[in-house]
Amino acid sequence: MATRNFNKLGEQFGTPLYIYEADRLKENLSNLLNYITYPKSKVYFAAMCNSQFEILKIIKSLGIGIQVNSEHELNIANEAGFNSSDISFTSTGISKVLMRRLIEESIEINLDSVEEVEKFCSFVTNKTFGVRVRLDKKIKINSTKTTNNFFESNVGIEKKDFNKIKEVSQKTGNKITGIHGYLASNVIDTKPFLEFGNFLVNTAYVFPDLEYVNFGSGFGVKYSEQDKDFDLEKVLHYYSLLLHKLSKCCQREIIFKIEPGRTIMADVGSFLVRITNIKNLNPKKSEISVDAGFAEFPRPKIYNSYHEIENLEKKGTRKKVYDIRGNTVLQNDFLGQDRILEEVKETDYLLLKKVGAYGFVMASGFPGKKLPKQILINNGNIEEI
Amino acid sequence: MATRNFNKLGEQFGTPLYIYEADRLKENLSNLLNYITYPKSKVYFAAMCNSQFEILKIIKSLGIGIQVNSEHELNIANEAGFNSSDISFTSTGISKVLMRRLIEESIEINLDSVEEVEKFCSFVTNKTFGVRVRLDKKIKINSTKTTNNFFESNVGIEKKDFNKIKEVSQKTGNKITGIHGYLASNVIDTKPFLEFGNFLVNTAYVFPDLEYVNFGSGFGVKYSEQDKDFDLEKVLHYYSLLLHKLSKCCQREIIFKIEPGRTIMADVGSFLVRITNIKNLNPKKSEISVDAGFAEFPRPKIYNSYHEIENLEKKGTRKKVYDIRGNTVLQNDFLGQDRILEEVKETDYLLLKKVGAYGFVMASGFPGKKLPKQILINNGNIEEI
Repeated sequence: MATRNFNKLGEQFGTPLYIYEADRLKENLSNLLNYITYPKSKVYFAAMCNSQFEILKIIKSLGIGIQVNSEHELNIANEAGFNSSDISFTSTGISKVLMRRLIEESIEINLDSVEEVEKFCSFVTNKTFGVRVRLDKKIKINSTKTTNNFFESNVGIEKKDFNKIKEVSQKTGNKITGIHGYLASNVIDTKPFLEFGNFLVNTAYVFPDLEYVNFGSGFGVKYSEQDKDFDLEKVLHYYSLLLHKLSKCCQREIIFKIEPGRTIMADVGSFLVRITNIKNLNPKKSEISVDAGFAEFPRPKIYNSYHEIENLEKKGTRKKVYDIRGNTVLQNDFLGQDRILEEVKETDYLLLKKVGAYGFVMASGFPGKKLPKQILINNGNIEEI
Repeated sequence: MATRNFNKLGEQFGTPLYIYEADRLKENLSNLLNYITYPKSKVYFAAMCNSQFEILKIIKSLGIGIQVNSEHELNIANEAGFNSSDISFTSTGISKVLMRRLIEESIEINLDSVEEVEKFCSFVTNKTFGVRVRLDKKIKINSTKTTNNFFESNVGIEKKDFNKIKEVSQKTGNKITGIHGYLASNVIDTKPFLEFGNFLVNTAYVFPDLEYVNFGSGFGVKYSEQDKDFDLEKVLHYYSLLLHKLSKCCQREIIFKIEPGRTIMADVGSFLVRITNIKNLNPKKSEISVDAGFAEFPRPKIYNSYHEIENLEKKGTRKKVYDIRGNTVLQNDFLGQDRILEEVKETDYLLLKKVGAYGFVMASGFPGKKLPKQILINNGNIEEI
């Protein structure tokens, strides 16, 4: 179904409305898998970007794993049918209770601190675990649009503590079998990913029992016409080469792991809204109020993020400059500013693009709204999910 | 119940846990009402700061009105027992459908634009409405902690358009009977409130049918020891004086209206969390992970807001510097940084203060969490709400 016809879905289901297209997800994942030229790989979908149950069921049906960051996400993953062997748990500050559960259910864990390693090793012997590695600050990210900069945080275990965690695990007969890193979130430049890949694989040589390298994700999405396209093929091809070299050196096949979320989910989702009022600000510009804003789609306000907005009623009318905002009392609640659209009228439909990741999942309904409906277009069926 | 004993509630209900104390709400409102020295006044609780049903029922029982900013909030207000005459609707971009409903149900509306006035007047004759007034940019706010600055927005009707809206309403036999303004949100200095009061009341003289002046709210809350106390008494006393003068001049009693939210709700709520892990960063500082963060209480991340954090297990141990963060994969998800607490241990309880306004209502559960429980302490009863 062409997005220009999504206004029909608005008539049927009402607005605001999240619309997901399963075909895009399948295509995105298929492309991504083709870019990996290393034979032994495992892809985990980052559930935090969209943990909608029906979406996770599709992900499951496509044969990849899932990365979860909390007990609640673990429960949803289980309900969606993922086996323990297809779940990777990476987070921070894991409690004793949760640690025991993860161990009991044989979920792969990447531990974030010396203290977590000590906790793990105080519980069990002869088990395996992975570690999150603290990033090398020499890696530079140019993108100003990065939503999460891991350099500023204290995530991961520092190089200086590697001997300590190796000692703790050796003493208890446990093995460090994986390393994991996160570069950042939504980085468009490929260069830092290549540097990060080198850094992470260089770390790998320190761990003699290594079985996998998990590069996390953070692959950028081209949200606006002004953005560059992210060269996912280049990055995954490079990581594949690194794993080839590493495996050769280790004389065994090390598993290549990644955790894409946004890169395969963003353009799966669109957000349909309807104009409730148009306020003329000056002869050149008007402010459109629509029936959704921060309450239903917080990214623009929280991250100052850009999403293309299409006027679905365009009929070759003259163009005007518009601010588009939620119809609440909340200020600076803009879905877009200074957008040039063909002239709109009240009750017209607008469509926001690439909202499938970090969209509905971040919505609180504040101020004063219900959470919007979500529908899934899959194999020609359209159903509310 | 002293907050230092809230850990017992953690044992009973689990964490994370929002805890509301009805007594504080009653006391806060009572103080506020005492500060109004003008006889004809009406106070509306700003539902957007906390629209929890049981809280709204208490508000209703205390005899004040409610300010809503959306159709959904209007529905909740109705369910909580508020009559139409106790509801004030102020928002932006009101749709035709909602406008008709508000008119039919005789809800007081403050219209935000010329276009909304035209819409209203195209529907009915011989009705009354209020208007939101665009702020005078000469009013200066010093506070850097203001969460919503209305000067940067296009909210309200500009002075230059007053004649136009008066004309539109006169033609249709409708009357502009109220003016409404918002200064900003959480302003600690009183000076801008006094200037704003002058500005709004000066606007009042333009509208011959005026029945009320609604000063909105935006009254600041002292969140940290470093903040000044907000002098609510001074501001409400000054507004009262302005209304006395205005009424004298108009030779009839104009109604004084305000819409407090945060100022009566903030310290009603506390947020109880539990430590899941402690990571030593360096000899002087550690990072505490707790079982809640952005997912359950987004204010610190969205607004960089400060909330006092109390260690409920303190036993005279030595003090240390801590960062306190949510135990998720999300970066920069801090509830507090560089806080000095008596030394903590895993499973200790921490209490965040003044979270009753813009707390739970903003929580989305992202990333990967369920929404936390809420309990209400009222007349000695403790119940989950």
